Amino acid sequence: MKELRIFAPATVANLSCGFDVLGVCLDNVGDEMLVRKNELKKLRITKITGQDLPFDIEKNVAGVSVKALLEKLDINQGFDIEIHKKIKAGSGIGSSAASSTGAVFAVNKLLDDPFTLKELIPFAMEGERLASGNAHADNVSPALLGGFCLVKSYIPLEILKLPSPPQLRMVVLHPLIEVKTKDSRALIKLNVSLQKAVSQWGNLGAFVSALYTEDYELLGRSLKDEIIEPVRSILIPYFDELKEIAIKNGALGCGISGSGPSVYVMCKGQTSAEKIKECIQLFYQEKGIDFDLHLSKINTDGIKIL
Amino acid sequence: MKELRIFAPATVANLSCGFDVLGVCLDNVGDEMLVRKNELKKLRITKITGQDLPFDIEKNVAGVSVKALLEKLDINQGFDIEIHKKIKAGSGIGSSAASSTGAVFAVNKLLDDPFTLKELIPFAMEGERLASGNAHADNVSPALLGGFCLVKSYIPLEILKLPSPPQLRMVVLHPLIEVKTKDSRALIKLNVSLQKAVSQWGNLGAFVSALYTEDYELLGRSLKDEIIEPVRSILIPYFDELKEIAIKNGALGCGISGSGPSVYVMCKGQTSAEKIKECIQLFYQEKGIDFDLHLSKINTDGIKIL
Repeated sequence: MKELRIFAPATVANLSCGFDVLGVCLDNVGDEMLVRKNELKKLRITKITGQDLPFDIEKNVAGVSVKALLEKLDINQGFDIEIHKKIKAGSGIGSSAASSTGAVFAVNKLLDDPFTLKELIPFAMEGERLASGNAHADNVSPALLGGFCLVKSYIPLEILKLPSPPQLRMVVLHPLIEVKTKDSRALIKLNVSLQKAVSQWGNLGAFVSALYTEDYELLGRSLKDEIIEPVRSILIPYFDELKEIAIKNGALGCGISGSGPSVYVMCKGQTSAEKIKECIQLFYQEKGIDFDLHLSKINTDGIKIL
Repeated sequence: MKELRIFAPATVANLSCGFDVLGVCLDNVGDEMLVRKNELKKLRITKITGQDLPFDIEKNVAGVSVKALLEKLDINQGFDIEIHKKIKAGSGIGSSAASSTGAVFAVNKLLDDPFTLKELIPFAMEGERLASGNAHADNVSPALLGGFCLVKSYIPLEILKLPSPPQLRMVVLHPLIEVKTKDSRALIKLNVSLQKAVSQWGNLGAFVSALYTEDYELLGRSLKDEIIEPVRSILIPYFDELKEIAIKNGALGCGISGSGPSVYVMCKGQTSAEKIKECIQLFYQEKGIDFDLHLSKINTDGIKIL
């Protein structure tokens, strides 16, 4: 195999009670990438469409991720990478993770799978480190493995894939304002009250349980975040109103996607999700802020070969 | 039915990563209680054996719990309660929870079940409030419901019963020194670092997942606690050595039971648990501290009618 065309999905991380540890993979929102072996023994980004991103390997998240992989293998096979961005940078739905994971997935496949999908995660995390200063795993894990992923621990890195109840739908609103992960992270206090932390881990435990028992209502009741959401939501125009509209119209839960400004709404069933999407659209188009709005199933496969 | 004799089980709460939210019910460690209707329209503690505990209804955890239940029902049926303590007060394995839950369970049963088991939890929590100044639910929930219980939230109170992988065994060492819950609680800082809190909820999420998937090794890897154990373990003689011995001999995990001084060791299989129990016994009997040592299955039923 000389070349591979793939779909690299968007992801929603920091799912409320699962700050820094829980992410989920979207189905019909994502980038396309074309990765091809070259005979130049050089890693190159040869084409980027849809976004203004650096071609320099050291400055591109796909570049640094693949470089880390090739260095680990200690081989000097060359690759050309085309990135066709559909996910906007700074949207909070894993734009950098899509590029990083897509690149390492395709290169690994073209090299006949020297690594398992889980083993690719640390390489893709190098892209996250470049993008945000923090090598987090809660976007790259669901992008690679699909479904809901839990970062059990960072040292050592251990990722669990959790079940995806089939009726779940995600509505994601991306207000077209840019919030840099670095800035959004700076808002977060280094210490939290033990009481709030206990409340957070009670909810996360319940959320994980509800994924196994397919208890949709419990999923919704568990999507609370008293720690991060109160401070980060101030950067998102009309966050409180959006959340109220979503819940009033039957959403299971609603919160900030990644570090924002995107907002995710978790819904039960396609019909409910379509109604909620429409309500959000009606509300937001009156506010004079451009936005993208997605409705997606849970993507249990992760990256797809096209 | 005029009277009921029951077994009120011991419980291990604060299971490492599940501080304040996760407890489990033991099988062969617990009190016996006899509860009988009387015609005096009075609630009385008529007999206590095994421990020196108050007979005054207002000062006895069983008394305040039943009083709360009867007040809620607004009836003046009288009851006589006999408490035969096997669990020592201040042991950290839910001595007060056994008395509170046993009493409300039996009274509820003698009144033909006006409340479900879950509905009894708040009454039993009144006993915990009296015992420790804090109406926690992570002992009374597993005592009433059996198995592993997660306190999803306190406001509103929501308790989830989680699965119990069948090969799990608990070895519990109770060094016969008294640590008051109030004192042990005073050691805990009101704030924690966000980084440690994230690590804690990652582990709790993984623990819950492992209960569903019966992944014993993952259960063990998830039983970490960087927040509470480091400060509370200083009150427990030879805690670090005990933990090392347990893990070296094949234990899945080890931590403080409740607020101590008991130490729990989670094991896979009866044979492994017996070996670990023996190692702990050999180690501790050289230290000149009296102790009790239990080996128990997980009790998935909770309180039992005898």
